Amino acid sequence: MARVPTDGINRDLGPLRDRLATIGDLRSAASVLAWDRQTYMPEGGVRGRAEQLASLARVAHGMLVSPETNRLLKDAGEREPGSDDAAFLRLARRQHDRAVMLPERLVADVSRATALAEQAWISARESSEWSLFAPHLERVLALKREEAGYLDGDHPYDAMLDRYDPGASTKRLRIMFDELKAGIVPLVRDVSARLDEDRAAPLRGSFDERAQEEFGREVISRFGYDWSRGRQDRAVHPFCINFGDPDDVRITTRFDPMRLSVGLFATCHEAGHALYEQGVDPSYSRTPLSGGVSMGVHESQSRLWENLVARSRPFWSFFHDGLGAAFPDVLGDVDLETIYRAVNAVRPSEIRTEADELTYDLHVLLRFELELALFEDDLAVADLPEAWNAKMAEYLGIIPDNDALGVLQDTHWAIGYFGYFPSYTVGNVLSVQLFEAAVNGRPETMLQMERGEFDALLDWLRENVHRHGKKYEPDDLISNATGHPPKTAPYLKYLQRKFGELYGL
Amino acid sequence: MARVPTDGINRDLGPLRDRLATIGDLRSAASVLAWDRQTYMPEGGVRGRAEQLASLARVAHGMLVSPETNRLLKDAGEREPGSDDAAFLRLARRQHDRAVMLPERLVADVSRATALAEQAWISARESSEWSLFAPHLERVLALKREEAGYLDGDHPYDAMLDRYDPGASTKRLRIMFDELKAGIVPLVRDVSARLDEDRAAPLRGSFDERAQEEFGREVISRFGYDWSRGRQDRAVHPFCINFGDPDDVRITTRFDPMRLSVGLFATCHEAGHALYEQGVDPSYSRTPLSGGVSMGVHESQSRLWENLVARSRPFWSFFHDGLGAAFPDVLGDVDLETIYRAVNAVRPSEIRTEADELTYDLHVLLRFELELALFEDDLAVADLPEAWNAKMAEYLGIIPDNDALGVLQDTHWAIGYFGYFPSYTVGNVLSVQLFEAAVNGRPETMLQMERGEFDALLDWLRENVHRHGKKYEPDDLISNATGHPPKTAPYLKYLQRKFGELYGL
Repeated sequence: MARVPTDGINRDLGPLRDRLATIGDLRSAASVLAWDRQTYMPEGGVRGRAEQLASLARVAHGMLVSPETNRLLKDAGEREPGSDDAAFLRLARRQHDRAVMLPERLVADVSRATALAEQAWISARESSEWSLFAPHLERVLALKREEAGYLDGDHPYDAMLDRYDPGASTKRLRIMFDELKAGIVPLVRDVSARLDEDRAAPLRGSFDERAQEEFGREVISRFGYDWSRGRQDRAVHPFCINFGDPDDVRITTRFDPMRLSVGLFATCHEAGHALYEQGVDPSYSRTPLSGGVSMGVHESQSRLWENLVARSRPFWSFFHDGLGAAFPDVLGDVDLETIYRAVNAVRPSEIRTEADELTYDLHVLLRFELELALFEDDLAVADLPEAWNAKMAEYLGIIPDNDALGVLQDTHWAIGYFGYFPSYTVGNVLSVQLFEAAVNGRPETMLQMERGEFDALLDWLRENVHRHGKKYEPDDLISNATGHPPKTAPYLKYLQRKFGELYGL
Repeated sequence: MARVPTDGINRDLGPLRDRLATIGDLRSAASVLAWDRQTYMPEGGVRGRAEQLASLARVAHGMLVSPETNRLLKDAGEREPGSDDAAFLRLARRQHDRAVMLPERLVADVSRATALAEQAWISARESSEWSLFAPHLERVLALKREEAGYLDGDHPYDAMLDRYDPGASTKRLRIMFDELKAGIVPLVRDVSARLDEDRAAPLRGSFDERAQEEFGREVISRFGYDWSRGRQDRAVHPFCINFGDPDDVRITTRFDPMRLSVGLFATCHEAGHALYEQGVDPSYSRTPLSGGVSMGVHESQSRLWENLVARSRPFWSFFHDGLGAAFPDVLGDVDLETIYRAVNAVRPSEIRTEADELTYDLHVLLRFELELALFEDDLAVADLPEAWNAKMAEYLGIIPDNDALGVLQDTHWAIGYFGYFPSYTVGNVLSVQLFEAAVNGRPETMLQMERGEFDALLDWLRENVHRHGKKYEPDDLISNATGHPPKTAPYLKYLQRKFGELYGL
């Protein structure tokens, strides 16, 4: 293959780079506005903010689909396969090709409708009043289905998935969920048969919120979260957000004064996302290469730090003392093994984000099936609460007391994130595959963890995952990092081993 | 004059309105980013934020000067004089005509350079290290002078003034400052001759920051600041900011744990700005009519609430008890008259924002003269600290101990706000003219103030100033509200009366 002279490449791509950087800046600005809306914006700001976000989305979309961008992409030709420039062009073209399928009006409508729906969701959730949210969800769903109609895909839901996991398909997810269902449902049944005592009890009580926040900050500082390039705030629904480069990556957390695990594991989870974003090659900033490659890989990082690290024995053998010191009245006398059993207590419950590691995927399965039904016309928005509760009864054996604990618990549908939920389970599956490869590659990882040190693990992740940003396709990234394409078996084996040991199966 | 049918007008202006609303949204987004930068952004965010702001400025500018906007403005014809539509067109054309004079590259350069300079200013001020800031100021000044070269004006400084006070001129400001100098300098001399005791001493001590914040919130809540449409945060330099409508108008404050007046009067000052913005006709939202008409009128509102209200005897006859209760150890036993004399203690000092009412304008005069010299090539940036100190010695009889207390104290130059400072003194002048008209129009104002009520005053300001947004030219607004164009004499008379009484002259 002929080598294109580097000199020529740089000159050629300059105007295209500038244009995409500007588009990226508009999107980053929208992210700042979204962060503000969810943290500090006064209630009066709702309508104005929705318009600002709609305008940013419309203008960015207009620039991306413009004849000028099209011309620059066409004239750019091809670059050395495997090079950053080749990846830049592939991603830029994908963005452009996807955008041209969508009318500008629809892009602005989705942005505005989701900004309003999110605010309605907050009110609805506070008062557990489904009717406050339903009309907004109708509107958002209609727009997202219209969007799917414009996009490619074997299944209308594929277009939703593609936004979060390029190349993901409904078909492949069905297979994954079938395998997991077959493995997890009997495991939950076996564990439930042994639910002798309330193992999570030590983590309930009265936990000063400032002490919770401080303990969480100590933990994620040790993980390697860089506070000079980030910050932590409160939000109704915890999230991680960044703005086109690795130098301002923020997380939000929700604390429950009565339940320690809510805030602690949310902090670790979001820090996992943030470590990924803070670790992307800075030379990718303001280009399509910046940021995590897919939400599945992103959730592999959040779930890895939340579960494989912060719900592990080595982690608690170090942090157990600090936890007792942070909450001397409640946890001063609780021994390590009790803490370890408490953070891993299995108990079917209503809220996904607070679910134990074993039942978590059943929450995701439920959402995946409901979303499919909404996109296949098998389910109306009006029937969603009932369908939710029926599936909760089927998979977890419980019916939520109210909709705030049920169908209203997540923000995703309000903000139009249909197709996002499967990423959590994809993330769980990948987290084990990556963690095992990391421990193989850096055998000192487990011993370090017992000392509250995480450099070996973070280094391996930085080297094999984080720094690459969006350069490789998700499957290729995983294959390069672990030697295998994504597979479900190691994850199931991990669950069986861990909970088999914990529950003496 | 023939009346244009309303129907036709609405149809015609629709696309122009949409376009200007979108441009306004991009600018509002930039304001959110600026707010974030000054409140919560981690230090790592500096570079990325500068790029985002530059892109927003460039894209908004590009849309404003585009052939499409030009065509819409041309085709719009004329509207009924005195109507909102006529004002809309006048303002839209002014925005456009000013923008077309400036190259897009310069607009982006100014935005980026000021974002970086502001961060440098924060570091320079912290360490009182002029050399950290000087190169940034060189760059910003060069860009602003280049900008002035592209714009109209008898004097290069006129182009700077015009941005903040449409129609203001260097010539007219020279006259105003000459009048004030002639009136204030002898007054300060007479008062200084009587500086027997340290009247401000009661306001120094140890003041719990949370109690300061709470007391300030109580005060401005009574003024009428609407918290559902705003919020208060901390920032190095207090400011008020909004985002294209009256429904999200935020203020920031800086508290000094040792000096009560710093935070309290900054809070009242910024709330004055915010009351103005919250009071603009909501139908002007996302149009060029939204927001305060000029910075001179804006500062008239901030200074009115800060001085005419919060430094008045009626105000303290109500709040005196609350202040004692908020700080029982320090102020529990201090009587009303002592407080009144303390908040009005005259003492030449280094910091403008903390200056007493009488010496305040001398701080502004100094800056006005230095800015003129910078724009007239009479002064180099390198010589600024020395020139600053020389003028401080001349007008206020003191030389700052270091540059943080001198030339580095204000953020304005860092963010390119040359020509803004005179607005403070214009605001002082107008504040008295407006306050006297308000008291004439609503004689119950003073009695209400003694009861901690401010509705009559706020109503009058809403009716005569706030609601009009940018509809009228500043001078016309003042004439309509007070029966006279702006004049300096009432302000001087007010100062002479107030400080004559306070110091027994």
